[in-house]
Amino acid sequence: MRAPHELPGFIRSTVDGYAVRAADTYGVSDGLPGYLTVTGAVLMGTEPSAEVKPGTAVMMPTGGALPRGADAVVMVEYTAEAMPGTIEVVRPVAPGEGVVRADEDARAGHEIIPSGRTLRPQDLGMLAAAGVTSVRVYARPVVSIFSTGDEVVPPETETLRPGQVRDATAVALAALVADAGGVGVHGGIVPDEPAALEAKLREALAASDVIVISAGSSVGARDETASVVARLGPPGIWCHGLAIKPGKPTLLAECARGSGGDGGSGGDRGSGGARGSAGPGIPVIGLPGNPRSALVVFRLIGMDLIRLVGGCAVPPPEPSVRARLDRDLASAAGRLDVVQVAVSGGAATPVFGLSALLSVLTAADGYIVIPEEATGLDAGTEVDVTLYR
Amino acid sequence: MRAPHELPGFIRSTVDGYAVRAADTYGVSDGLPGYLTVTGAVLMGTEPSAEVKPGTAVMMPTGGALPRGADAVVMVEYTAEAMPGTIEVVRPVAPGEGVVRADEDARAGHEIIPSGRTLRPQDLGMLAAAGVTSVRVYARPVVSIFSTGDEVVPPETETLRPGQVRDATAVALAALVADAGGVGVHGGIVPDEPAALEAKLREALAASDVIVISAGSSVGARDETASVVARLGPPGIWCHGLAIKPGKPTLLAECARGSGGDGGSGGDRGSGGARGSAGPGIPVIGLPGNPRSALVVFRLIGMDLIRLVGGCAVPPPEPSVRARLDRDLASAAGRLDVVQVAVSGGAATPVFGLSALLSVLTAADGYIVIPEEATGLDAGTEVDVTLYR
Repeated sequence: MRAPHELPGFIRSTVDGYAVRAADTYGVSDGLPGYLTVTGAVLMGTEPSAEVKPGTAVMMPTGGALPRGADAVVMVEYTAEAMPGTIEVVRPVAPGEGVVRADEDARAGHEIIPSGRTLRPQDLGMLAAAGVTSVRVYARPVVSIFSTGDEVVPPETETLRPGQVRDATAVALAALVADAGGVGVHGGIVPDEPAALEAKLREALAASDVIVISAGSSVGARDETASVVARLGPPGIWCHGLAIKPGKPTLLAECARGSGGDGGSGGDRGSGGARGSAGPGIPVIGLPGNPRSALVVFRLIGMDLIRLVGGCAVPPPEPSVRARLDRDLASAAGRLDVVQVAVSGGAATPVFGLSALLSVLTAADGYIVIPEEATGLDAGTEVDVTLYR
Repeated sequence: MRAPHELPGFIRSTVDGYAVRAADTYGVSDGLPGYLTVTGAVLMGTEPSAEVKPGTAVMMPTGGALPRGADAVVMVEYTAEAMPGTIEVVRPVAPGEGVVRADEDARAGHEIIPSGRTLRPQDLGMLAAAGVTSVRVYARPVVSIFSTGDEVVPPETETLRPGQVRDATAVALAALVADAGGVGVHGGIVPDEPAALEAKLREALAASDVIVISAGSSVGARDETASVVARLGPPGIWCHGLAIKPGKPTLLAECARGSGGDGGSGGDRGSGGARGSAGPGIPVIGLPGNPRSALVVFRLIGMDLIRLVGGCAVPPPEPSVRARLDRDLASAAGRLDVVQVAVSGGAATPVFGLSALLSVLTAADGYIVIPEEATGLDAGTEVDVTLYR
């Protein structure tokens, strides 16, 4: 966004005092004050009618517009009433002192807010100051979230049969999607049955910018998901399996934009910046079935992907803290290890537990990433903890 | 929140493999495999009907429920089909290996999510896993936002007359309020006229949890705001003037909860946790009239206040980065200085400019706080930059 006109748009006083011609104050001091005739007062929000002529001054409130003829404002603290209608000035001012220039906050036509990042509170303030109350933004990416697995039942299921688990991943993913600027759409729980999954995904391809599947925890369910996704191509599967723990069985793919029977529905959702008719395919992420693994991978890969699809090339900064690891951590070389930690008093304590345990994530304040080349970290190592919020 | 029952609620396999009695695998090796008869397979999401008797095994998918009789799961990688219906096992397993206990993610009745903090994505996941789809939360604090000043006009004003400025503060404050978990309600622009402001504030006291006023930039407007707020007491004004730059003319007060004609409207907004009929008064923050000063002070003081009113005793972590100051910074002792900086390549460059300039905030990546006791910071000092997001 560029400034439609200069800001503030007029020479503006930054102090309470008197508008003067700076030359009238040269050489004044406590011992030898200058005397000026007060010819009026500027009112807030109005154009000053008086002109400041040599030997005169006009009362100025902070934020008022400088009258013609004046080129500085002397602070009220450096003036005193000598007699009614006359002030003495005990400090000289230079031209431009006590004011902001008419274009000091923004020059006409110059960029005030860059593209490619989210609007911060002060950015909204600057736009408001410039009279910009409407801006073109990228549409929020629509992210369809599916859960698969015959064992998965909706969270509202009151009583579980042995072997059943409630869908913990979908709601947590939706929160991460929202945090990344997307709109999560619950696609529901799909049974481990390729035809059912394929039908659901084809439908979603016509109405989504990104598709996320938590891909069932058994190897059979994962393989089925991969086969179904492969059939949705081209371009198809980018990779199946990442050198990351937890999160190894992650699938990354790009599938052709839906052109099926209800292709018209894409247009109904408005013209998102990321969606062009000849644009790239739809990213599809197949996440591990364990909720913890799924959330770790999605936080590392999925959120930035959604930001990119949503036009946010500069991800917002993440909270982090330096802490000292309070015990040794093993890690295999050639693999990224994500370790949840609790942080207290400058110490990072790993929260151990199996990939299947969501409680590892809820007990943690954040996580550290052990890089591929490392074979572990010694107790006492200073680490960067990315904090959950 | 406490777990209504243990989680996952059943002994659950963490690997693909075979449910066995661990004792049946003791002593086996590549050279001397053990042989087990496969008597069935566990299906995902169902209660296993088969019992694992000595000398037998049952096929297990990751995430499946362990059948009766079994006490471990041997990974498929350590097995081979010896003949149809029989597997050989080449690695021993200990009891409990390859499974999570029925209460390993959460014990029945134990706390799963603490109070006093915002729900993170993984917390929502854990609640879903426990079947908790509804929780009692604090109501979002309703924060009424007023702008004062005869020079202030609405952002949608197309053409400014000299002396007029558009209201930049209200929209930016509303964004900060939302970020702190509150609901900003625009009270509008009030002219510099005590009776008008008092009427607006009395009305707002009956329908707000916090009131924020950007208090006009001239000393007259500020003093008038203070007088009006004083009349709204008791308890009244806590302080007027903070040892902070920018932000000195900040007013903090607590005013009696409105009991005026439409007192019933309080009830209409639901029973917020922060609002008790005999509770404390309504916090009132009078901010400096300069948008930049107002936003700096509100970020430091107002956001945590709103979080507290909203029941969030543990503020979420803020993004920050360590950087090296690339020039000397002066600061007066006895006053907190907030300095906006741009951060690039590990260097923090102060963004200088008058308090009146919003562009200082939009050009900055974050800010540093120079403590009261310091009289400045030397170039090269390592500083903690709190990053805007």
